[in-house]
Amino acid sequence: MLDEALVCHVGFVAEHGPVVLPMTHVRIDDDLYIHGAAGNDMLHHLADGVDVCVTVTLLDGLVFARSAFHHSMNYRSVVLFGRAERVTDPGEMCRFAAGLVDHLAPGRSCDARPPTADEFRSTLILRLPISEGAAKVRTGGPLDEGDDLRLPVWAGEVPVSLVAQAPIPDPSSADPVAVPAYIVDLVSGRHDGH
Amino acid sequence: MLDEALVCHVGFVAEHGPVVLPMTHVRIDDDLYIHGAAGNDMLHHLADGVDVCVTVTLLDGLVFARSAFHHSMNYRSVVLFGRAERVTDPGEMCRFAAGLVDHLAPGRSCDARPPTADEFRSTLILRLPISEGAAKVRTGGPLDEGDDLRLPVWAGEVPVSLVAQAPIPDPSSADPVAVPAYIVDLVSGRHDGH
Repeated sequence: MLDEALVCHVGFVAEHGPVVLPMTHVRIDDDLYIHGAAGNDMLHHLADGVDVCVTVTLLDGLVFARSAFHHSMNYRSVVLFGRAERVTDPGEMCRFAAGLVDHLAPGRSCDARPPTADEFRSTLILRLPISEGAAKVRTGGPLDEGDDLRLPVWAGEVPVSLVAQAPIPDPSSADPVAVPAYIVDLVSGRHDGH
Repeated sequence: MLDEALVCHVGFVAEHGPVVLPMTHVRIDDDLYIHGAAGNDMLHHLADGVDVCVTVTLLDGLVFARSAFHHSMNYRSVVLFGRAERVTDPGEMCRFAAGLVDHLAPGRSCDARPPTADEFRSTLILRLPISEGAAKVRTGGPLDEGDDLRLPVWAGEVPVSLVAQAPIPDPSSADPVAVPAYIVDLVSGRHDGH
């Protein structure tokens, strides 16, 4: 689920109370990495080793029951708890940068120009060990009460998934560049189910 | 954004630290409603009027830059802060139940059997006034540095959206029921961009 989801929601306690922010992430082995601008106060707060909760949710379907009460959604979610640490090892920073672009499209790291030392200096990378958490999954159709099954109301599931559309090339390229296979793969459905 | 998103992420401070949970929601006028089982400890904690943060994120596209550093995502997000209150007024509970199923598919509340008093008793409904928060939006293509524009690396945006697939009727209906127009509308693209 962590690999399939493109966005996670990072929760922590700021001075004025709980804060939940959407962020991109990448899982490498048993660690989850998030990042942001080095000047970002919130990330510095996280780097101080405060408790953090990172949640990832994949929506799989809308569940229509005969009764309003039993309407539901099919989804998969992971809730992770822990404390993040700032990444400072150059090798780990490189693996993170490659992993993050490969998370968007596997293979991208072979094409994209790797970060310079200056770019790494302006980035705060955090590592959260994946050690404590919970996963929840709902699948299948509605679960109506027996009496309601006789109601003349349509019931069932409408599956949903995140689908990529045709790529829009950036017009500022000096020379035209062919669309790489890993981008074509995204659009032809590899990202189905995200 | 609150109306387009089908899932929100609710953050609060539990005994052991921050917690972020995915939930369904519905906006009615200037309030955001969430709900769960009456026996849910977390919801009871929220009903006590603790600080809560509710975040909604819509992913719109993957942004491929020539440099790894400038890869990004197009998204829209809202972060709301406040304190939730338990809903006890029967009229408001009814409006919530209708709003929630109409959030899945507008018109559904005219078909679905409304909740009974028992069903309402087993549900904890919370109202969060929409008063303090922030919205963030990123659109458009990559923003590479001038020198990188000459690199022979494809760059651009791959738009993504949540798309509904063909409905799967629940097999336990006593008699077959035609798929309602509002379900057909979901699949034909009304939910594009979710």
